[in-house]
Amino acid sequence: MKLTHINEKGNPKIVNISDKPLTKRVAVAMGEIELSPSTKRLILEGKTKKGAVLQTAIVGGVMGGKRSWEIVPMCHPIPIDGIEIEIEEIEKGFRVIAGAVTTWKTGIEIEAITAVSTTLLTIYDMAKAVERGMVITNIQLLYKSGGKSGVFIKEEWKREIEGILKKL
Amino acid sequence: MKLTHINEKGNPKIVNISDKPLTKRVAVAMGEIELSPSTKRLILEGKTKKGAVLQTAIVGGVMGGKRSWEIVPMCHPIPIDGIEIEIEEIEKGFRVIAGAVTTWKTGIEIEAITAVSTTLLTIYDMAKAVERGMVITNIQLLYKSGGKSGVFIKEEWKREIEGILKKL
Amino acid sequence: MKLTHINEKGNPKIVNISDKPLTKRVAVAMGEIELSPSTKRLILEGKTKKGAVLQTAIVGGVMGGKRSWEIVPMCHPIPIDGIEIEIEEIEKGFRVIAGAVTTWKTGIEIEAITAVSTTLLTIYDMAKAVERGMVITNIQLLYKSGGKSGVFIKEEWKREIEGILKKL
Amino acid sequence: MKLTHINEKGNPKIVNISDKPLTKRVAVAMGEIELSPSTKRLILEGKTKKGAVLQTAIVGGVMGGKRSWEIVPMCHPIPIDGIEIEIEEIEKGFRVIAGAVTTWKTGIEIEAITAVSTTLLTIYDMAKAVERGMVITNIQLLYKSGGKSGVFIKEEWKREIEGILKKL
Amino acid sequence: MKLTHINEKGNPKIVNISDKPLTKRVAVAMGEIELSPSTKRLILEGKTKKGAVLQTAIVGGVMGGKRSWEIVPMCHPIPIDGIEIEIEEIEKGFRVIAGAVTTWKTGIEIEAITAVSTTLLTIYDMAKAVERGMVITNIQLLYKSGGKSGVFIKEEWKREIEGILKKL
Amino acid sequence: MKLTHINEKGNPKIVNISDKPLTKRVAVAMGEIELSPSTKRLILEGKTKKGAVLQTAIVGGVMGGKRSWEIVPMCHPIPIDGIEIEIEEIEKGFRVIAGAVTTWKTGIEIEAITAVSTTLLTIYDMAKAVERGMVITNIQLLYKSGGKSGVFIKEEWKREIEGILKKL
Repeated sequence: MKLTHINEKGNPKIVNISDKPLTKRVAVAMGEIELSPSTKRLILEGKTKKGAVLQTAIVGGVMGGKRSWEIVPMCHPIPIDGIEIEIEEIEKGFRVIAGAVTTWKTGIEIEAITAVSTTLLTIYDMAKAVERGMVITNIQLLYKSGGKSGVFIKEEWKREIEGILKKL
Repeated sequence: MKLTHINEKGNPKIVNISDKPLTKRVAVAMGEIELSPSTKRLILEGKTKKGAVLQTAIVGGVMGGKRSWEIVPMCHPIPIDGIEIEIEEIEKGFRVIAGAVTTWKTGIEIEAITAVSTTLLTIYDMAKAVERGMVITNIQLLYKSGGKSGVFIKEEWKREIEGILKKL
Repeated sequence: MKLTHINEKGNPKIVNISDKPLTKRVAVAMGEIELSPSTKRLILEGKTKKGAVLQTAIVGGVMGGKRSWEIVPMCHPIPIDGIEIEIEEIEKGFRVIAGAVTTWKTGIEIEAITAVSTTLLTIYDMAKAVERGMVITNIQLLYKSGGKSGVFIKEEWKREIEGILKKL
Repeated sequence: MKLTHINEKGNPKIVNISDKPLTKRVAVAMGEIELSPSTKRLILEGKTKKGAVLQTAIVGGVMGGKRSWEIVPMCHPIPIDGIEIEIEEIEKGFRVIAGAVTTWKTGIEIEAITAVSTTLLTIYDMAKAVERGMVITNIQLLYKSGGKSGVFIKEEWKREIEGILKKL
Repeated sequence: MKLTHINEKGNPKIVNISDKPLTKRVAVAMGEIELSPSTKRLILEGKTKKGAVLQTAIVGGVMGGKRSWEIVPMCHPIPIDGIEIEIEEIEKGFRVIAGAVTTWKTGIEIEAITAVSTTLLTIYDMAKAVERGMVITNIQLLYKSGGKSGVFIKEEWKREIEGILKKL
Repeated sequence: MKLTHINEKGNPKIVNISDKPLTKRVAVAMGEIELSPSTKRLILEGKTKKGAVLQTAIVGGVMGGKRSWEIVPMCHPIPIDGIEIEIEEIEKGFRVIAGAVTTWKTGIEIEAITAVSTTLLTIYDMAKAVERGMVITNIQLLYKSGGKSGVFIKEEWKREIEGILKKL
């Protein structure tokens, strides 16, 4: 087992993928933001009327996912085929689920995770004036298919994975 | 209490700060990544020898913090005075602490949080080949001073806050 | 009368503004997109339910306005104080009005116009699958105050100018 | 007929194109800027001597076209094969024609239109010191080939389309 | 003497400048590209007719200078007041001189040097089809004023420094 | 022999590569920075302890290489397969060698050269507080394979070329 981004001198590198085949690759990631009931209500009422906070967060998340290679230093620039983001209300706040797909030699986990992360940062930014103490948590990969490493799945999130894959 | 990024029609906006005074503003944020002991060891051995994963993550984090306004849709572009990031080993993985400072009419919470978030995404990206199941968690603001809202502090993190403020 | 971006050899340059005073500067710009009644209805029904096309366009427009200096070659990077975008239905399609404000030595016309332009491009992009023949038109500055050139106003758009200024 | 960027909840998304075939896709777009004879003369004299305004605008336009996916929220990142921009003098000012080509699963309309739009914004920016009232108008797609939707053409612009296609 | 970008743990950081005063800061940098007489002639004939290579390089250089903070990891984002670039023919190829100015707490050396470097990269890129062996050389700071470190000057380039300062 | 970025009117363009085949393309570039023994020692001691300057420079270089198409105006956006950067101590300072690979219709010289150039700019930026007079020099392409122009090699750098190709 070896960290592929580290070359023999220990310097960071972008791993050479030129001999890998193109395969369809799909990833699903999630993350959550914990906030108070009153902040949640303010966001949701905004949503009921115009959807502004959550929809802005989705736009930010999609754009962040596209820019993963610019933000994450050793991430390959890849041609993304699709990104889909959903936000659902949970008891302690909101859960973000993102699905992303590419047909390429590498990817698409970090793109899905960056999309989730940017969505959550946007919610934080838009609500921080009313609650500075919000916590972003549980950012993780739920599913990955394609590529030689085979399928990765966190079975306990099967329903969420299937939900977003159906829409992607 | 009102969400300042939402205008009267509910559309997102960048709030007009033209009449706010310049003040020195400091923020400290944190976040954690949970990973297995074997992944941690791989990263740390890399660190002992060359420091590659964690130092690359710090560079990514600093650059991510500077680009907050590009990534977070309604975030103001502000002239950042300084960013400092530290990574410490914790039992379940690594903790990232970031301090950021500006002398401006708004900021600097989201810049500190984006710096933390990008640092964690970079660790995830560089280690994902050996462990896809890592979880990014506990991203939160620990401290904020400056501006009319006064000082915000999560007292239980006082030691970490003071540690990074001393270096900033 | 002289084009300030052209130096004596005719090469493009960023004009030196170091000796100009900081003043509060406000600009309002507009633009329109012409499309068929059926496309308009599709967009508006989307708006009634979720507001997706027009709100995504507003988010794109705000972000585009912030990036004016990256997109327009000889545009100064300036710290933007606020951006506000509105979209209204007109007979032939939609009209976009953007207001922007800075407290700086130059600006803020191009930022308002770029915000309008990006909003319109986003509407075009999101609706082009149903109508490729849409036309983007009437992009222009309506109002500018601040700076030594004094107030610029297109009187026939006074109502729109006042409307957006009140919200900025 | 359905807006492809809107998912079933009405949230914006990047449409999944992973199952579409690669095809060569060509688009031509145009746009105009209306300005006074004296501003036109200043620009053209600059052009005669050094070409600065219009050539800077072309460089800005090419770079803007490449960045469409960064600027337009739901636009796919695609590998652009070529961009060509021409500016011609018309009675009321200048007309910009841009051709763009890709060999990919989606595109290339928005890239051509963004190239036109950025070219026009650059002309506006470089000439605004002498004339704030300029109007950007008539931005539209003239031609598109490739992809399953077949050829789109605005016949009345056939000469301009053929002119740019010959050079692309 | 201490490297200011290295904190006590040796990690990179953006140095905290919040307590430094605003001062007007001017920098001049230069660099050269060596190429064959036939490539030079091709470029110059292009210049005589349309100026395309060298003017595109100047536009690229100005835009690169503005983006220094995005490209150079520990560089502060600063509000640039002006950038001026000149290219002169020298025996072995071309020399690029860039002047840049800011009124801020830090800068403006790296912005001038990045402007020079991007100008040279653009010439290389546009001419590489005819000569792959070109060499970019002699990139250096010639002059810096403002800030507490006082005036830095390479006296042997006095004429070039004065030439660009007069135009800035 | 013709400059491919110049169209018949002399305007800059992105050359249409849509009919070129995909081939694996590899490039190696180098560059040097000259600095005083005391600055070199400071950097190297940093390196011995934490590697900060040189490792930050490598991260900056990799990220700069990925962004070539954003920085260099007429450069195609291409999907980069890998980037590897090495820094070695030489008598007068440091030498940077970068290798880059793509499987595409164009590239990968400018990406390798931009990676070298950004690495050197980062070293300059991080050491400029102790020595403003450093000189960046000898930036050049050492090797290129793939594409119809065949192999380009500067034989006198064979050892360096082979060294980096082995690691890529």
